[in-house]
Amino acid sequence: MDSVIAITMGDGAGIGPEIILKTFLGNEAEHINLLVVGDLVILEEVRKRLGHGGIALNGIRSMDQAHWVSGTVNVWDMQLLKLEDFQPGEVSRKAGDAAFKYVVEGIRLANEGLVAAVVTAPINKEAIQSAGHHFAGHTEIFAAYTGTDNYAMLLYDKKFSVIHVSTHIPLADAISTLNQARIERVIQLAQDSMKKILGHPPRIAVAGLNPHAGENGLFGKQEIDIIKPAIENMKAKGLDVSGPHAPDTIFLRALQGAFDIVVAMYHDQGHIPMKLLGFDSGVNVSVGLPIIRTSVDHGTAFDIAWKGMASHESLLQAIYLAERLAP
Amino acid sequence: MDSVIAITMGDGAGIGPEIILKTFLGNEAEHINLLVVGDLVILEEVRKRLGHGGIALNGIRSMDQAHWVSGTVNVWDMQLLKLEDFQPGEVSRKAGDAAFKYVVEGIRLANEGLVAAVVTAPINKEAIQSAGHHFAGHTEIFAAYTGTDNYAMLLYDKKFSVIHVSTHIPLADAISTLNQARIERVIQLAQDSMKKILGHPPRIAVAGLNPHAGENGLFGKQEIDIIKPAIENMKAKGLDVSGPHAPDTIFLRALQGAFDIVVAMYHDQGHIPMKLLGFDSGVNVSVGLPIIRTSVDHGTAFDIAWKGMASHESLLQAIYLAERLAP
Repeated sequence: MDSVIAITMGDGAGIGPEIILKTFLGNEAEHINLLVVGDLVILEEVRKRLGHGGIALNGIRSMDQAHWVSGTVNVWDMQLLKLEDFQPGEVSRKAGDAAFKYVVEGIRLANEGLVAAVVTAPINKEAIQSAGHHFAGHTEIFAAYTGTDNYAMLLYDKKFSVIHVSTHIPLADAISTLNQARIERVIQLAQDSMKKILGHPPRIAVAGLNPHAGENGLFGKQEIDIIKPAIENMKAKGLDVSGPHAPDTIFLRALQGAFDIVVAMYHDQGHIPMKLLGFDSGVNVSVGLPIIRTSVDHGTAFDIAWKGMASHESLLQAIYLAERLAP
Repeated sequence: MDSVIAITMGDGAGIGPEIILKTFLGNEAEHINLLVVGDLVILEEVRKRLGHGGIALNGIRSMDQAHWVSGTVNVWDMQLLKLEDFQPGEVSRKAGDAAFKYVVEGIRLANEGLVAAVVTAPINKEAIQSAGHHFAGHTEIFAAYTGTDNYAMLLYDKKFSVIHVSTHIPLADAISTLNQARIERVIQLAQDSMKKILGHPPRIAVAGLNPHAGENGLFGKQEIDIIKPAIENMKAKGLDVSGPHAPDTIFLRALQGAFDIVVAMYHDQGHIPMKLLGFDSGVNVSVGLPIIRTSVDHGTAFDIAWKGMASHESLLQAIYLAERLAP
């Protein structure tokens, strides 16, 4: 049997269920064995409301119950939610709790080797936190449940990608904790993951921290003391890496084709340009984990949930990317 | 006589001279009395090389020598440079020194009331610093020569604008010096300048400092302690101001039309999105100065200097904006 890729259903009150069904509707990923980790009853209801009767739903509790045939969605049925537990488009403790548990189950399936990768549909932070699960996001859940420190968030798009030296911490901490070893590790993660994705070694561009990348020390010393030595060390290892580049021009250059991936020093340095470009096809990848994890790069979009309006393009790209990264 | 707007020629080795000539070639600003502060001999040479013979150059040393007629460029001839002093497209101490002095002269003309505003063509930082003038950019020169502290850098575009709480300082200093009074002043500067530009009060959106605008204090407290109180105070004064918004989505929302101007907490927060969008028509405005100053938002572009390839769109927009802002 070919390897299986899990898709966690995300928050049941969000757009997760419908973008998953849309992915099967178009048969665009029918060559991949996809296992949805979620609640069958929710998927059945969304299928009914949106008139996707052509899709068969097969609830299973063990892998040998799966039917790997086109048009059939194999659902690892967690049976956590009832329809009356929540309202579509509203934050719910129960839906948040379930969404969290789908993710933990996806990680378990991967850790046990039953699936080769996990693709995550969006969860709602307020919902999972109201259920007592205090995580900043998927990446942090995966890191905790795999006992990993050496990971990073990569935003992938066909045009270019960004990997982050730090993510969900105060900006002041992103500066005070900046260190050469971490930057070198993230450059190496960029190298390893993009090589798998592209099929060849990437052209890596490292952003500075300060305006104009410090203007030779005039607006900050981190470029001279920390970032440049890290780049030189990785160059010496044979990587195609340049910088530190001025943060306000590096992304335009990447968009124009000069680089495959930008190493961003903090969350917003990488997120501002990627969100602004509004790539439909953006994928969020947690790299450095012992298991492969990709994700849509959008949220639960409660305002349009269960209406059939949400695009499944990002989910499809996340599935394709998981396939390429999977062993 | 109508009021006069000065254009400083910028670095003679850059694209300044040719984009100025192109502005006159198209007659797109012929309704405005423009006075070029620079060197006649350079403009004559560029005119010759690019075949712009239809433009008349009138070198003057006092305002009564000016001829305000279409097709004539009045040049406040500083006579600082000779043709042999520098090569087009190369950093030169002499061209840098002259470029600096055009700016200082433009400020003097404005301070004396001879011109109503100053529009600046690009200077090269390396060139002006090699000539011993240690300024980070135009804005800092204007601030120093007008004795002003309460100013801010605004990047204007038709789609949306950004104003910066801080600019050319290390990112760590941008955080440690962040304070409520400064944010309130910058919101007020956004209000005053955009009201003049748009003809009505602007919709102002204030960005947070930290990822997700601090996520209710989870990733930083500045939003709660400093930024939100500043916004509330300015709201109480009747301004249409909202926030703090998540930095990684505020610019897309502005682009989609939700806001007229974004208040950015540091240089790159505002510069990354504006440069990435690559607006041809972007204008850099120094607001809060006692004199009106607008500028192209691009550099000297040495690689294409004196070749007739540079677009004058940004300069034209800077002139139009100066006209709207002038008393």
